[in-house]
Amino acid sequence: MAEYKTDIEIARAANKKPIQQIGEKLGIPLEDLVPYGHDKAKISADFIARQKDRADGKLILVTAINPTPAGEGKTTTTVGLGDGLNRIGKKAMICIREASLGPNFGMKGGAAGGGMAQVVPMEEMNLHFTGDFHAITSAHNLLSAMIDNHIYWGNELEIDARRIVWRRVMDMNDRALRDIVVNLGGVANGFPRQTGFDITVASEVMAILCLARDLEDLQQRLGSIVVAYRRDKTPIYCRDIKADGAMTVLLKDAMQPNLVQTMENNPAFVHGGPFANIAHGCNSVVATTTALKLADYVVTEAGFGADLGAEKFFDIKCRKAGLKPDAAVIVATVRAMKMNGGIKKDDLGPENVAAVEKGCANLGRHVQNVKKFGVPVVVAINHFVTDTEAEVQAVKDYVATLGAEAILCKHWAQGSAGIEDLAHKVVELAESGQAQFAPLYPDEMPLFDKIETIAKSIYHAGEVIAEKSVREQLRQWETQGYGKLPICMAKTQYSFSTDPNLRGAPSGHTVPVREVRLSAGAGFIVVITGEIMTMPGLPRTPSSEKICLNDKGQIEGLF
Amino acid sequence: MAEYKTDIEIARAANKKPIQQIGEKLGIPLEDLVPYGHDKAKISADFIARQKDRADGKLILVTAINPTPAGEGKTTTTVGLGDGLNRIGKKAMICIREASLGPNFGMKGGAAGGGMAQVVPMEEMNLHFTGDFHAITSAHNLLSAMIDNHIYWGNELEIDARRIVWRRVMDMNDRALRDIVVNLGGVANGFPRQTGFDITVASEVMAILCLARDLEDLQQRLGSIVVAYRRDKTPIYCRDIKADGAMTVLLKDAMQPNLVQTMENNPAFVHGGPFANIAHGCNSVVATTTALKLADYVVTEAGFGADLGAEKFFDIKCRKAGLKPDAAVIVATVRAMKMNGGIKKDDLGPENVAAVEKGCANLGRHVQNVKKFGVPVVVAINHFVTDTEAEVQAVKDYVATLGAEAILCKHWAQGSAGIEDLAHKVVELAESGQAQFAPLYPDEMPLFDKIETIAKSIYHAGEVIAEKSVREQLRQWETQGYGKLPICMAKTQYSFSTDPNLRGAPSGHTVPVREVRLSAGAGFIVVITGEIMTMPGLPRTPSSEKICLNDKGQIEGLF
Repeated sequence: MAEYKTDIEIARAANKKPIQQIGEKLGIPLEDLVPYGHDKAKISADFIARQKDRADGKLILVTAINPTPAGEGKTTTTVGLGDGLNRIGKKAMICIREASLGPNFGMKGGAAGGGMAQVVPMEEMNLHFTGDFHAITSAHNLLSAMIDNHIYWGNELEIDARRIVWRRVMDMNDRALRDIVVNLGGVANGFPRQTGFDITVASEVMAILCLARDLEDLQQRLGSIVVAYRRDKTPIYCRDIKADGAMTVLLKDAMQPNLVQTMENNPAFVHGGPFANIAHGCNSVVATTTALKLADYVVTEAGFGADLGAEKFFDIKCRKAGLKPDAAVIVATVRAMKMNGGIKKDDLGPENVAAVEKGCANLGRHVQNVKKFGVPVVVAINHFVTDTEAEVQAVKDYVATLGAEAILCKHWAQGSAGIEDLAHKVVELAESGQAQFAPLYPDEMPLFDKIETIAKSIYHAGEVIAEKSVREQLRQWETQGYGKLPICMAKTQYSFSTDPNLRGAPSGHTVPVREVRLSAGAGFIVVITGEIMTMPGLPRTPSSEKICLNDKGQIEGLF
Repeated sequence: MAEYKTDIEIARAANKKPIQQIGEKLGIPLEDLVPYGHDKAKISADFIARQKDRADGKLILVTAINPTPAGEGKTTTTVGLGDGLNRIGKKAMICIREASLGPNFGMKGGAAGGGMAQVVPMEEMNLHFTGDFHAITSAHNLLSAMIDNHIYWGNELEIDARRIVWRRVMDMNDRALRDIVVNLGGVANGFPRQTGFDITVASEVMAILCLARDLEDLQQRLGSIVVAYRRDKTPIYCRDIKADGAMTVLLKDAMQPNLVQTMENNPAFVHGGPFANIAHGCNSVVATTTALKLADYVVTEAGFGADLGAEKFFDIKCRKAGLKPDAAVIVATVRAMKMNGGIKKDDLGPENVAAVEKGCANLGRHVQNVKKFGVPVVVAINHFVTDTEAEVQAVKDYVATLGAEAILCKHWAQGSAGIEDLAHKVVELAESGQAQFAPLYPDEMPLFDKIETIAKSIYHAGEVIAEKSVREQLRQWETQGYGKLPICMAKTQYSFSTDPNLRGAPSGHTVPVREVRLSAGAGFIVVITGEIMTMPGLPRTPSSEKICLNDKGQIEGLF
């Protein structure tokens, strides 16, 4: 009967175990498990440091086709696969991202998975959780306040107030703050200038927290943030403002991974949540590397489709953290194949094998792309009740032509029992020793060539175009020593091209680079190829108008 | 040797017990104690509701003379007295306010008490603690975002954008945000208007959280916030914007009191922290009323000196929550008496009985004022090592002439052993049945008369002056049904007058009312008599420049 309940109803009915018992399974002593309520905990930095000589488990990436309005179920499959691996006797953990608070008040909040494959407690994970994002907001805005304060007291560093690139952040959808003038009110308040707020997940502090190995590395990276430039265009760093120490103090607890559980009581780290366009879109390195010490299998996911998410996971996170993924799962659905085959959302009901076959081109491109990183691939067909056998078979047949396998998974309805086949296949791939992971491009490649490599190899673009000023900026950064950084592409998630309406597997398109940004602390160059919104707005009727506590003290309207 | 250690060194050496053990002493079952780490916990709303039929303990207010740069030690005495009452066999609890995060990065952070009379863990209490202030920031700013969003989508409520009184908040000292223009950037972003940020503790949401009885009352009060006016000056409420439900959801956990412990392992609630000028400056009603159910003695404090803090505690918090204090302790020091007697801070060393005697007038005024509320008073002389016997005796002799007793307390150096005499005296007063608590003025008195009553009766002012527009505004609120609200005076804390340099016990001065503000959700009228800064700035060399983690992972520079 699970099909007739909503995700939140299923999640509320979960038979949760005390978080101490979940930690015990992983061998975490009580004193190293820092509880936040009865069902959430942080893992102490001290415990993490003590695991460093242990062998690593196998790392499995769950990625997906380009998202469609039909829904793919990447997180659901990540959770389901973790449960499935535990079910077949493996010691497995899940590592996923934290949700952002602000967007929940615009549209309904996101579940962590769905159906019988969820991480709980869902409400807390969509609200304040363990306070990580609030800590990031505080650390980010402390630096902002210290920059304006520096100018106020005489501007010894000679900051060019027109060239301050460090804005402020808030975990709220508030378009009124996108573009503002601060420091009004005369002598007591400062020197007026134009700036704005981004949403917290867009903060470079978020990306840094998710890439830092430990607190020392965190402070080092925070110190390296470029906050402004002088009139002569030389950069001014966070450490020039002397904010890096206090920011590290504010982030001390936020750096510790959060332990929660799946509905089947298996352990999950939910930690960090950087934007998947102007940042790399993966959960924290600390969570992933710690999980690899504690479990034999770690299932993690990357944001958006494989063209953006998996590429960044491999080229940024794995490269920086020295991770070597052992297998990748690409999630697809029959419905999404049909949409890629040209069918509209309202017409997805009737069987349409031809549309499925046509839409498979998108899936095929992703399978081939992931293989370019030397990682063996399996396709998970996330089952929907309307799928017909012939449609499912069409996907399987197509994937077989690529030398890979597509496996039907029913974890949404059945939990781990519905995903055993995929779990066995993942174990087979991971144990086979097939994986020969290598990033797409070497550190030494010039920055513009890196962009071209991603665009041509992954997106199958014909060319990359950019204004002279963009190319000059890239060369300047190379001169300043940033040439070895990887590229973080900000592109629409809906297409291999920069046109969100171009589904399937387009080729030969042009990728126009509008802007490039340096994230010197996080350690990547952001390349922007379209409109990127870093502060969302609320819709005409925001979901917050309906959110409330009911008579039982439960939250209504959030899901 | 304790005298030679800093507060933070003493606090770090505290022999803390697991918070579950502290809760057990109060009879809180494990499932109702929501842990935040090993030494902090929230008490479930469900448990609190179940205590409603239990008898109340005795309520003791700790207040003080007007603060001087010499330091008085109000919180230290609150903590010491709580420990002292436990030492003499009473079941006692402490209720104090939470610290604000932002100011710690300007000046050094505040301890929760001092010496051997502290509440721990000090670091966490000065950083994110259990996230209450972050939740308040989120709830406040959600309402702000929804107001601008309402205008953006057509302004059905006909909000006059020039008359939006609801600003935004951040828990940061950031003067750049005091006065800003938002909604720049054209059609996609909104209608430009001038506004600003206050620090989170100045938010009306903070005052509301601290005065609400339960979640239902909280939502009711949030809904009653006046956020803006129309062109015809009719008010627009938070509930018109439909933000009250979602704000309540965001504040659900923040409404639960935080349990920590003193260094002597006695229970303390640290919950809420409204400004003591534009708000009432007391810890939450929920914490105090819950503590009264769990302990036989509850020791709490109010902000600033008794002229502001005790008056608001009695006239706002006690009036609204139906609390009946049984005794009050007024904290004084020999050094502060000398400063009130005209001695400069650098000259406080040598014995000066005459200056002590002269300065006692300030103390005497406070003793007499507190008695006006029908609450028996004892004076605590918080001992400093430089105090001479003759100076202490001078204070005792003076207080005896007022029909009260002054007791020397050495809790800073000795903990509870140094404050037994005061504890016995407090028990004697509380058990005596002397207390006949009544607020200073009735609800029905006209608003301007209430202001005059406070100014003349408590400050000994000669007159209250105000522009015609101020008097008209008060009359308008009376017409709108706000006439029964109590007054929340925003006045300098350093003097009975509005001149911060006028120490001692001045009389006949003029109190000029600059501005009045309606806090309809909190339920009081704010009367501003001087410059009130609701968003602090950072100093030339902010303490944040020196804050960092040391090799042991301890926080340096915060204290």
